[in-house]
Amino acid sequence: MNNIQELFGIKYPIIAGGMVWCSGWYLASAVSNAGGLGLLGAGSMHPETLLEHIQKTKMTTNKPFGVNVPLLYPQQEVLMDIIVKEGVKIVFTSAGSPKKWTSFLHDHGITVAHVVSSAFFAEKSEAAGVDAIVAEGFEAGGHEGREETTTMSLIPSVRKATSLPLLAAGGIGSGEQMLAAMALGADGVQIGSLFAASEESSAHVDFKKRILETKEGGTKLMLKQLAPVRLIKNEFFEQVQSAELKGASVDELKELLGRGRAKKGMFEGDLLNGELEIGQVASLIKEIRPVSAIMQQLQDEFEIAKKRIIES
Amino acid sequence: MNNIQELFGIKYPIIAGGMVWCSGWYLASAVSNAGGLGLLGAGSMHPETLLEHIQKTKMTTNKPFGVNVPLLYPQQEVLMDIIVKEGVKIVFTSAGSPKKWTSFLHDHGITVAHVVSSAFFAEKSEAAGVDAIVAEGFEAGGHEGREETTTMSLIPSVRKATSLPLLAAGGIGSGEQMLAAMALGADGVQIGSLFAASEESSAHVDFKKRILETKEGGTKLMLKQLAPVRLIKNEFFEQVQSAELKGASVDELKELLGRGRAKKGMFEGDLLNGELEIGQVASLIKEIRPVSAIMQQLQDEFEIAKKRIIES
Repeated sequence: MNNIQELFGIKYPIIAGGMVWCSGWYLASAVSNAGGLGLLGAGSMHPETLLEHIQKTKMTTNKPFGVNVPLLYPQQEVLMDIIVKEGVKIVFTSAGSPKKWTSFLHDHGITVAHVVSSAFFAEKSEAAGVDAIVAEGFEAGGHEGREETTTMSLIPSVRKATSLPLLAAGGIGSGEQMLAAMALGADGVQIGSLFAASEESSAHVDFKKRILETKEGGTKLMLKQLAPVRLIKNEFFEQVQSAELKGASVDELKELLGRGRAKKGMFEGDLLNGELEIGQVASLIKEIRPVSAIMQQLQDEFEIAKKRIIES
Repeated sequence: MNNIQELFGIKYPIIAGGMVWCSGWYLASAVSNAGGLGLLGAGSMHPETLLEHIQKTKMTTNKPFGVNVPLLYPQQEVLMDIIVKEGVKIVFTSAGSPKKWTSFLHDHGITVAHVVSSAFFAEKSEAAGVDAIVAEGFEAGGHEGREETTTMSLIPSVRKATSLPLLAAGGIGSGEQMLAAMALGADGVQIGSLFAASEESSAHVDFKKRILETKEGGTKLMLKQLAPVRLIKNEFFEQVQSAELKGASVDELKELLGRGRAKKGMFEGDLLNGELEIGQVASLIKEIRPVSAIMQQLQDEFEIAKKRIIES
């Protein structure tokens, strides 16, 4: 049992990222039941939807689970209120200041992890009292940084900056990559793309199939002026790229983005006009599989890679 | 002994990248004498300079060493002729087609490694008959790709594409990062930045000191329209960035770059107007040290990290 397994009370130090339009109760409880930590992605949920998903998760697993709350969310107070009332024990905050909610959540007995993209913000997060850090590299679908620091550079840097339990995110979709993250100093991993393409993900099946078709170089981190996001190179991506190359302003980009783009792409399966968020590791995902098989394969690959390293 | 150690006849599977303005005979022979593979960086050398450096390397080490030839170099024929006549046994080619020189070099008994930034070009390189692949991620100083694939994503992808001996490059400046590269499937590593900042590097001492001062986020991959290069964010970088944001053409960028920018920055120590190339890992380098100490530390860190992984 390492510090991540102890902190969250889980068998494997594997967290399924709380992804918009992918991470509902069905995915979260499947991951938790398989020995990892499932997170609900509150970022794409109305408050009443989150309530429903928390309740369904509680009905379908008796293992620990959590909620990811991106601090760009307009009605954070309402979400946090639901989280506390429903007795959720673990919250991952992202895309905002770790100071904002940590004390409040601690006061309600909730364990807090915060997502960062630099050692600088890892230090700020430790100072704010969070219980664990997720350090997310440039290759991630949900990378928030503008500094483009990759997982390979970021994890050792964050490891030096803090002694808190540390989860690596970005570029992790296999047991070999999980072992690499541990070698860099992480205590566990947060995996996104691989679970976005799982059977239990609430994403549209056409989006999942599109993930499988994504080739190396098939994604790019865009919209750095708004909130950076890694996009599959579809027609909508081309529009964003052409606007950015022409030097579009923040307002012009916001207008192009419009409302509901991510929902359109990832939940409704509009592969042309929708926003399709995914990590670079998509190019290594070849199959839509159930969470139980994914978790088993991660373990098997991890053990084989570890054996290979030991014998080398 | 793994396949990299056997192929090159070296004690440690550590190659010091053949970096422009850094990798002269003094660095190459120090690395080879310490059990790694030193490479001369022909990219910044006139043919007669390369000749001198090869001869001095031969005088100062009896261990294997090699030459890196970027295939953008205008007088490649002259360089290759010198390499053959001087009996160099190992050549790393980069920034061009692996087909161009591989047979010629093989005909002269020379072992060939080729640098790629994608699995696609790794396959092309294997088809061209090269003996080893260097796969270099987005975080590297010398990254050549426009697809921005990071080491964490790239190595497993290249590992699947080829069974050739594989060196990981980009984001590697410690034994932990070396172990991570091995976990991802690499057989060895090519390290740049760390040796650029070594005592034996021929770079200007002011550039070396500037490397030590580089913070996380202090570099960015620029000039993707010409040949991509990761730059330290100095005044010259600001000029490039502002030109690129304004949508500068290839010709405008070439004019801004002018001639001798990298020499000015890295060799002459003009930290304002010079081009300062380095990898993201610069932010983790804190000291200018002799190669022997660097090699020892890499080994020590590697063994400690391996022990930590085994015991976890």
